[in-house]
Amino acid sequence: MRAATAIDVHAFSRQPRPLMLACLEFSDTGGLAGHSDADVAAHAAADALLIASGIGELGTVFGTDREEWAGASGSVLLGEAVRLVSEAGWQIENISIQIIGQKPRFAPRRLEAQETMSSIVGAPVLLSATTTDHLGALGRVEGIAALATALLTD
Amino acid sequence: MRAATAIDVHAFSRQPRPLMLACLEFSDTGGLAGHSDADVAAHAAADALLIASGIGELGTVFGTDREEWAGASGSVLLGEAVRLVSEAGWQIENISIQIIGQKPRFAPRRLEAQETMSSIVGAPVLLSATTTDHLGALGRVEGIAALATALLTD
Amino acid sequence: MRAATAIDVHAFSRQPRPLMLACLEFSDTGGLAGHSDADVAAHAAADALLIASGIGELGTVFGTDREEWAGASGSVLLGEAVRLVSEAGWQIENISIQIIGQKPRFAPRRLEAQETMSSIVGAPVLLSATTTDHLGALGRVEGIAALATALLTD
Ligand SMILES: [Zn+2]
Ligand SMILES: [Zn+2]
Ligand SMILES: [Zn+2]
Repeated sequence: MRAATAIDVHAFSRQPRPLMLACLEFSDTGGLAGHSDADVAAHAAADALLIASGIGELGTVFGTDREEWAGASGSVLLGEAVRLVSEAGWQIENISIQIIGQKPRFAPRRLEAQETMSSIVGAPVLLSATTTDHLGALGRVEGIAALATALLTD
Repeated sequence: MRAATAIDVHAFSRQPRPLMLACLEFSDTGGLAGHSDADVAAHAAADALLIASGIGELGTVFGTDREEWAGASGSVLLGEAVRLVSEAGWQIENISIQIIGQKPRFAPRRLEAQETMSSIVGAPVLLSATTTDHLGALGRVEGIAALATALLTD
Repeated sequence: MRAATAIDVHAFSRQPRPLMLACLEFSDTGGLAGHSDADVAAHAAADALLIASGIGELGTVFGTDREEWAGASGSVLLGEAVRLVSEAGWQIENISIQIIGQKPRFAPRRLEAQETMSSIVGAPVLLSATTTDHLGALGRVEGIAALATALLTD
């Protein structure tokens, strides 16, 4: 059995851009910056999977210098991480993901995101969201973080 | 088997108010703001339980718009989360909670808090505390965070 | 089975000092402040082990007021935590550690750090690193944090 916890953080983009979060598009706030779609929830989940399995880490496996992953969506990266972890002989028990930020309002779409991500992962992905009570950079709406824990068995 | 990690953050209140933390009252610093008693340790633990079990998340299950939970103490929310998780057929292996902040001095009351929370949960609740080495909003004593991981079996 | 998550944070030192991180020395940036070698990765891992096993927490077990641990390296503290946890009858399934900060460049030495720490722990230690996308105190290179999750069986 293996457990790993990973955080991912992206700053809001100064360019107009859709917000991709937990494999959904949100229209009530601007998007996050990053060479990919900057989906912190998908990235944290993929990273936790790659770390727990010992395969590596998100930045190394899907590095910014690798053409084939430039601009890849969170869904694609997460799906690929799941494929690698499964091929290595691991079974995913579950992933928990907590989105941390003042925006967007996540609760109304929590179940939709949970179904979308669980379907990509093929195991329970449990989503939640919280704020920092307006403290710090996340509290000043400078970015969004996601904290993911993955549990695997072999 | 299921694991989930959750963080909770509250800012210090500008009103004089007791500090409730890990189901204990601390007198060496002011209290945290929030419609409830703002016990970050109890909230993070309850949230981790609700997320791991797939029941939901703290804000949705005990929402601020629900009269029956307005002003509820951390002990009551945690006890209710334990009841919901147990009723859903889950057994709690343990919960770890790390309190993150410059204040209060937690170490002298760590074992007392651990016994109190373990007795509410009916399983080992393992408490610890750390600082951010004076960095960031928590380092400027603007608030306190708690980081909880819950492990469940069915 | 037991799981625990712990974070450790140290500010960069104003004195010239080597950076000790994940039981390795890095020369591309200054060191972190602390009475010990301020190795956040080793500290977070040792803390997660001590918490999960119920033995205590890093600050209490290896307190700053205890002469025998003053100035102890992260390797020594981690090795001692492993010894205590093993003596108490626990088996370490794995530890995941994510280093959070803008510096140093960790990826080139990730596998070396992973081998070094796994050899100290006698079980898989899975390392990764990320940034806060220049947000907050860690994004302003004021310090480095490490987030560790330990999984134990008895
Ligand atoms: Zn990312
Ligand atoms: Zn709360
Ligand atoms: Zn430390």
